[in-house]
Amino acid sequence: MNPESFFSKDIKPALQNDPPGEWMPAIPADCIRLSSGYPDPGLVPVEELKEAVVKLLEEEKDLPLHYLGSKKVEDLKVFIQCLMVERFMLIQSDEVLVTSGACQAIDLIARVLIDEETVVAVESPTYMEALEIFQNYTSHFISVEVDENGLRTDRLEEELSERKRKGLKLPKVLYTIPTFQNPTGTTMTEERRAHVMKLAYEYDFLVIEDDAYGMVYFDQGIGSLKSMKRGKDPRVLYVGSLSKIVAPGMRIGWVAAEKEFIQALSWFKKDLDHPFSQASMSSIVENTDLDSHFITLRKVYREKCHLLLSELKKHLPDSVSWYVPEGGYFVWLKVPGVDTSNMLDQAAAEGVSYVPGKYFFLNQEDGLEYLRLSFSYANESDISEGVKRLGKVIRASVSGV
Amino acid sequence: MNPESFFSKDIKPALQNDPPGEWMPAIPADCIRLSSGYPDPGLVPVEELKEAVVKLLEEEKDLPLHYLGSKKVEDLKVFIQCLMVERFMLIQSDEVLVTSGACQAIDLIARVLIDEETVVAVESPTYMEALEIFQNYTSHFISVEVDENGLRTDRLEEELSERKRKGLKLPKVLYTIPTFQNPTGTTMTEERRAHVMKLAYEYDFLVIEDDAYGMVYFDQGIGSLKSMKRGKDPRVLYVGSLSKIVAPGMRIGWVAAEKEFIQALSWFKKDLDHPFSQASMSSIVENTDLDSHFITLRKVYREKCHLLLSELKKHLPDSVSWYVPEGGYFVWLKVPGVDTSNMLDQAAAEGVSYVPGKYFFLNQEDGLEYLRLSFSYANESDISEGVKRLGKVIRASVSGV
Repeated sequence: MNPESFFSKDIKPALQNDPPGEWMPAIPADCIRLSSGYPDPGLVPVEELKEAVVKLLEEEKDLPLHYLGSKKVEDLKVFIQCLMVERFMLIQSDEVLVTSGACQAIDLIARVLIDEETVVAVESPTYMEALEIFQNYTSHFISVEVDENGLRTDRLEEELSERKRKGLKLPKVLYTIPTFQNPTGTTMTEERRAHVMKLAYEYDFLVIEDDAYGMVYFDQGIGSLKSMKRGKDPRVLYVGSLSKIVAPGMRIGWVAAEKEFIQALSWFKKDLDHPFSQASMSSIVENTDLDSHFITLRKVYREKCHLLLSELKKHLPDSVSWYVPEGGYFVWLKVPGVDTSNMLDQAAAEGVSYVPGKYFFLNQEDGLEYLRLSFSYANESDISEGVKRLGKVIRASVSGV
Repeated sequence: MNPESFFSKDIKPALQNDPPGEWMPAIPADCIRLSSGYPDPGLVPVEELKEAVVKLLEEEKDLPLHYLGSKKVEDLKVFIQCLMVERFMLIQSDEVLVTSGACQAIDLIARVLIDEETVVAVESPTYMEALEIFQNYTSHFISVEVDENGLRTDRLEEELSERKRKGLKLPKVLYTIPTFQNPTGTTMTEERRAHVMKLAYEYDFLVIEDDAYGMVYFDQGIGSLKSMKRGKDPRVLYVGSLSKIVAPGMRIGWVAAEKEFIQALSWFKKDLDHPFSQASMSSIVENTDLDSHFITLRKVYREKCHLLLSELKKHLPDSVSWYVPEGGYFVWLKVPGVDTSNMLDQAAAEGVSYVPGKYFFLNQEDGLEYLRLSFSYANESDISEGVKRLGKVIRASVSGV
């Protein structure tokens, strides 16, 4: 029996791509992990979770362990609505779907919107998991450059108008991370935000706004794209997540969108609800001063980012350049003349890891000279030591030694 | 803007079906819930979970709250492999995928195997969530009767040979719950098990074996279909779950199948892993005497089932009939001459709930005279009182009062 002979015709094109997680560097255990987009271990509310679970189970007993029944699942949704208010959105209960992290949110949106003929516009570079997801549904993409001011909306407009002129198919959807982008750390300017939404209306496409890092600003918060039209632009499907501000292992994300979209997404969410995880998170929210947690979190990441940047200046050759982020988890490096995938083995041997740039591009060739560093997970002394090691490896690669 | 105009062509047929959860009866809060397929509240390991989470977070700190990293996630997989040994299966690590409950397992299998032209064979009646899932992918079904000895494999063979003779498309997959079936409570005999697997080889189809209730036997365990060929028949994709034996709210299920299937399923599992939930479950497993938990569980459900059956004999008119289950959560009633969907309002008004039979049938007309009762969730006095109320409602409906 040949298992593959039973596969659906619909999944066969997807299986031609790289397997999921291919981007994850295989690194020795004692490596300094500048590759990990994990929160700082000190910011993960371990004690709070312990107390929250004990309290939850004392108060609600078996309720959060059945399929349905915990009131706290509903409370979590209310908390999520409040969080969105901080990003200037006014979202009703039937306009939110809680998901298993942002990845499931993006996957459900893709399932509802994208078929094998759909054209999807993405940023270049962009979040590799999202590329993996979209490539499970279609192979038609428009890829638009990101610079220090976020998505080059002028380039997007050129591409759209050219396609229109030539009678080519226009994109149904644009996937963007406008705020503290993964992997570049850049943020779309206000002008470009207005421009991209103008294009969405003009060329009739939807916008998937991935806002996983929106709350992780260093100095000042920025409204979401979705908020720009009376608190909820109907063209924007907003994706939020507690992974970067509370903990990814709880798998709490969500979609905020017009209720017709939410209904269709729920239709296909066949992992049902996750009452224990959602109620536990809800119990943390209820019993923790999250406002002060967020203040601490911003301070910690701001300092770690500044440390990383100053170490980069100290230890990297002048040819290497990067954007200065105002939030998020990442710094994006251009290392001219170096294939960063090839360099990864030496880096691991020196005891430092990163994610090679190519995985963030549809056309991987475009990303050979880039790499993504995270300042979120490693502690301060590891950041300093890690950059020192990286500097050594880069110098050796640049000089061809 | 019309949201529906953006929907993928692939999902439009699915949206023509009943919305998910349509089967769930809307019942007043103080109703006796003979509708709920929830575990007995006394069997949900609330204290054990509390201790397990505290211990987990003391030992592993932030590890289970990141994307990856908790060793206990791997331990859970080993526990699942051991559980399968109790069902006489020998499954390697790369032949298992842990999922968010059995529903996600079935959905992923459907995604990998089924496209809009695929023919799926199902039992009639069968698990309504599975029908919902399959109908999201195809509208081509073969529906084969279940009697007190499980699936009528003779009828399946007739249907297959007739299709072959006529040159009609044959099914790629059969979905079956051979042990303590939902909703009928029946179990496929050994002869029929051998027969169905013979047919699978002869007519070249795969078997999805849903074994959610396999461990909930009253007196004696039965091997799985998958176990029948040297511990793992490659034609069987086995779906397991901890929902019915530990707690559904933890959302732990799995698929055991040939590794080529497991790889393809993982490809599309875009809610990623659920480390906190999986590690917490793993910690319960490690710190609880689950063998004695299973012994208690079997005793409790056996007694509640026997109570339900004896109350049915006492309070229901002679025209009503049912199968006697040897495990599982359910008793399946035939109420001749009564439309059980219409009767539900009266039942709720009397203070008792059930699930109308029609939701377990592809052709809902076939299920009008049936209803599903659960003995798992209600306590003993509620079971007695609930059946008394049901008896009153049925008598009134039968006599047309």
